[in-house]
Amino acid sequence: MTSESSKKHPTPTRRISESTIHRLSVYYRQLAILESEGYHTVSSKELAKREKLTPAQVRKDLSFFGSFGTRGLGYPTTELKQKIANILGIDKLWHVALVGAGNIGSALASYKEFAKQGFELNSIFDNDQRKIGSNHKGITISDIGTLPEALKKHHIEIVVIAVPASNAQKIADICVATGIKAILNFAPINLKVPSDVVLRTVNMSMEMEYLSFYLCNRHNIDVPGKG
Amino acid sequence: MTSESSKKHPTPTRRISESTIHRLSVYYRQLAILESEGYHTVSSKELAKREKLTPAQVRKDLSFFGSFGTRGLGYPTTELKQKIANILGIDKLWHVALVGAGNIGSALASYKEFAKQGFELNSIFDNDQRKIGSNHKGITISDIGTLPEALKKHHIEIVVIAVPASNAQKIADICVATGIKAILNFAPINLKVPSDVVLRTVNMSMEMEYLSFYLCNRHNIDVPGKG
Repeated sequence: MTSESSKKHPTPTRRISESTIHRLSVYYRQLAILESEGYHTVSSKELAKREKLTPAQVRKDLSFFGSFGTRGLGYPTTELKQKIANILGIDKLWHVALVGAGNIGSALASYKEFAKQGFELNSIFDNDQRKIGSNHKGITISDIGTLPEALKKHHIEIVVIAVPASNAQKIADICVATGIKAILNFAPINLKVPSDVVLRTVNMSMEMEYLSFYLCNRHNIDVPGKG
Repeated sequence: MTSESSKKHPTPTRRISESTIHRLSVYYRQLAILESEGYHTVSSKELAKREKLTPAQVRKDLSFFGSFGTRGLGYPTTELKQKIANILGIDKLWHVALVGAGNIGSALASYKEFAKQGFELNSIFDNDQRKIGSNHKGITISDIGTLPEALKKHHIEIVVIAVPASNAQKIADICVATGIKAILNFAPINLKVPSDVVLRTVNMSMEMEYLSFYLCNRHNIDVPGKG
């Protein structure tokens, strides 16, 4: 994976911002819409307009990954979409494990968007004896005690953590020790991982607190509204 | 609500960053832990250490909302926790509606963390005739067609949108037209709302794409890992 991607994107080491990566995801979705609407090419101006960005921002984001498009003609829609899929790594299959088969975990296991983008959930773990051995959408729920061996056996690359806050750090530590480099955390806690591991945390309670903060303070503090 | 909060936090209008608001949520959680561990006071140094921040950052964040603590003695733990709860608006009850009773919506409706923080879900809406009228954890699922009147009738302040991407903008427009000022969106789409409405979007697919991007590019691009 690594040596392959190094060959494909031989960009010299420089820093890319979190918001650029998110905008790539946004461009990818917009290009899929443009494609379905029959646009064979798209200008940076059109892409910018649809996402309320400046054309310069779009060109800058894309130029980070090499040269695309032809001056005056714009970008070829399908080709650019595929190129962004390649940059984002969603043109390949990823092996994903889910730890925690509670409400949130079960909902994530049923979330069709993941599979569509090549994130293949092939293992689910829980510590509840009533759940272990049962079947969720074709996947047998395994004992969390088997996590280290199972992650290796199933060549898991991404782990989704959806356990209570009190257990989440322990699970993250096991994942890191097993060599996992990418974790999506839904537990309401800030996990600690080494700097070579990418961690994204979806903290729904904190998002709600952002809303209530805004509702309380919007008349006396300038609060950034859009998230 | 508005005039009350203006009286309570008479800070002159200035801009507060998104990350400051998120750090308040983090401090709140850490103070609850410190409280349960028996700490009556806490220094900015201790609070900073536990969250891998600098003491200056902690003091700066808190000073935004007035003066706390005593030089040399630190902050009184419980009082600071309650003060932050007040700033975040989680010391009161909020009326929340959920639109969309699919996998993600149902999981959110069962998410106990929300209720613990004063976010009281009192209405659920769906457009599926098989779901309308059925009961989810004591709440009858209503027809999405009744949304405008129901939002007013139940004094809804926050709407959680968990419908497919294709319907999400329509639902957001209805909410905005009814006077809703805070939306938490789980549909995988960038919604457009007026500038006086706060919108937070939890896009789980984009978080997964961040991970795959990192896994593909971590050896040749300096990618910010922690989210």
